Amino acid sequence: MENARARSRRLRLAVAHEIVATAIPGEAAMSLAGVRALTFDTGGTILDWHSGVKGALAETGARHGIEKDWTHIANEFRRRSLGKMINLGEREPPAYNIDDAHRMALESLVEEHGLDAFTEGERHAISYDTMHNLQCWPDFPDTLSKLRENFLCASFTILSFRIIMDTARRNGLGWDAVFSCEATGKYKILPEAYNAVAKFLQLEPGEICMVACHNFDLDAAKGCGFRTAFVKRPDEWGPEGPPDRDPNPAHDIVADSFPDMARQLGVAM
Amino acid sequence: MENARARSRRLRLAVAHEIVATAIPGEAAMSLAGVRALTFDTGGTILDWHSGVKGALAETGARHGIEKDWTHIANEFRRRSLGKMINLGEREPPAYNIDDAHRMALESLVEEHGLDAFTEGERHAISYDTMHNLQCWPDFPDTLSKLRENFLCASFTILSFRIIMDTARRNGLGWDAVFSCEATGKYKILPEAYNAVAKFLQLEPGEICMVACHNFDLDAAKGCGFRTAFVKRPDEWGPEGPPDRDPNPAHDIVADSFPDMARQLGVAM
Repeated sequence: MENARARSRRLRLAVAHEIVATAIPGEAAMSLAGVRALTFDTGGTILDWHSGVKGALAETGARHGIEKDWTHIANEFRRRSLGKMINLGEREPPAYNIDDAHRMALESLVEEHGLDAFTEGERHAISYDTMHNLQCWPDFPDTLSKLRENFLCASFTILSFRIIMDTARRNGLGWDAVFSCEATGKYKILPEAYNAVAKFLQLEPGEICMVACHNFDLDAAKGCGFRTAFVKRPDEWGPEGPPDRDPNPAHDIVADSFPDMARQLGVAM
Repeated sequence: MENARARSRRLRLAVAHEIVATAIPGEAAMSLAGVRALTFDTGGTILDWHSGVKGALAETGARHGIEKDWTHIANEFRRRSLGKMINLGEREPPAYNIDDAHRMALESLVEEHGLDAFTEGERHAISYDTMHNLQCWPDFPDTLSKLRENFLCASFTILSFRIIMDTARRNGLGWDAVFSCEATGKYKILPEAYNAVAKFLQLEPGEICMVACHNFDLDAAKGCGFRTAFVKRPDEWGPEGPPDRDPNPAHDIVADSFPDMARQLGVAM
């Protein structure tokens, strides 16, 4: 028997796509006519982790009269925790989640930079509370509301469910669903992660557009058949600038901001 | 090293629970003082599947001049699809989801009741479109908004992600997250299903209250350490009345409606 997804897909092809009717003319909008869902990388793409982590480190340091290059340490915190998550679950089920990775990354930095004065409570506040209370980029909340009128919009992330739930509440974001790699134990950039989300959305990969400010995530999504939108976040790594300064030109959309991305998707802002 | 969840729990115990401060006096509210999240069975507890399915069957029948006991057939549809899902994934990964189960249940009823006149499009409309467009019980949306001011509120369901996403949009519901058993492949009432949700919420089971109109779900949640709230939905099965008429008196809350449950949780309605 034909499964629900194939049947849904077949029947859907028989009806006109409302999205086509509202799309602006232009190459990008035309090639994205069949997109029904947007999946958002959330870590650096939506949330400003750099300001949050740097601020928490600097504040804690000041309390102890310690001066360090907090910009650099914040970026190392990100690099190390991300390094522990990418492709996690490839061979065996993960033994930890991103909250644990954040704590492990902090501990290694405490040791290297002589920050032993940081108390247990302070370490928890930096690696846990700060990450669950990050602010999002200011151009996102209003754009998300608009995008949801036309698309299913889900967080698709290596962050924990709780980080997404907590930051959504703090920033007033309404996600249609949270797809944390925590659920399946297969983390980006494993193809299983993208395939699972397409299955849960009951859409063909080509009907989903992955949104991120990182080529590695978008390239992996593209490899699974997703459409891709690169949104520039030049301040993601603070004054150091993002490692992914140059978008892969193969992405369906390259945007300077979330409103710009929305316009390229045919959504009036 | 202590994991994020244990650490979070320990530090949290040191700070006053805001929820305690707002709780109304009374036994139920006192015993539920530590609850931080509510997980909602969504199928019959939030969504009125009986009216939806019966209506779709009757309408399709009328189109073909067929008269049947649609109330009975609608309830059989529910019984059979539910029967295919409970404990699914116990021994091996599931080969189907609830959308497939809905279609299988309908096909068996079409055969038994001589409904071969129903076209492919009509069968899809009954088993898929109807289930993705169910109306929720009228006392829920406003209560959910109020509850979310005090608790994390998530759908925790054997239904597919897409049913929850689609019905949330149709009814204006805002979930903090959707925990569909589809993600882990371990369906209620397997303990793994409840344990996974507690892990994703980063809460002790006793800090979570499972909300449902079914003893079987609540009893299983209680077995995993969750608190439980039984909300009566006397019309869930139409005029036939629900099989679970009598709440297990062991539940922490037995409520006549969602506002009643909210009041018992200490939330002013």
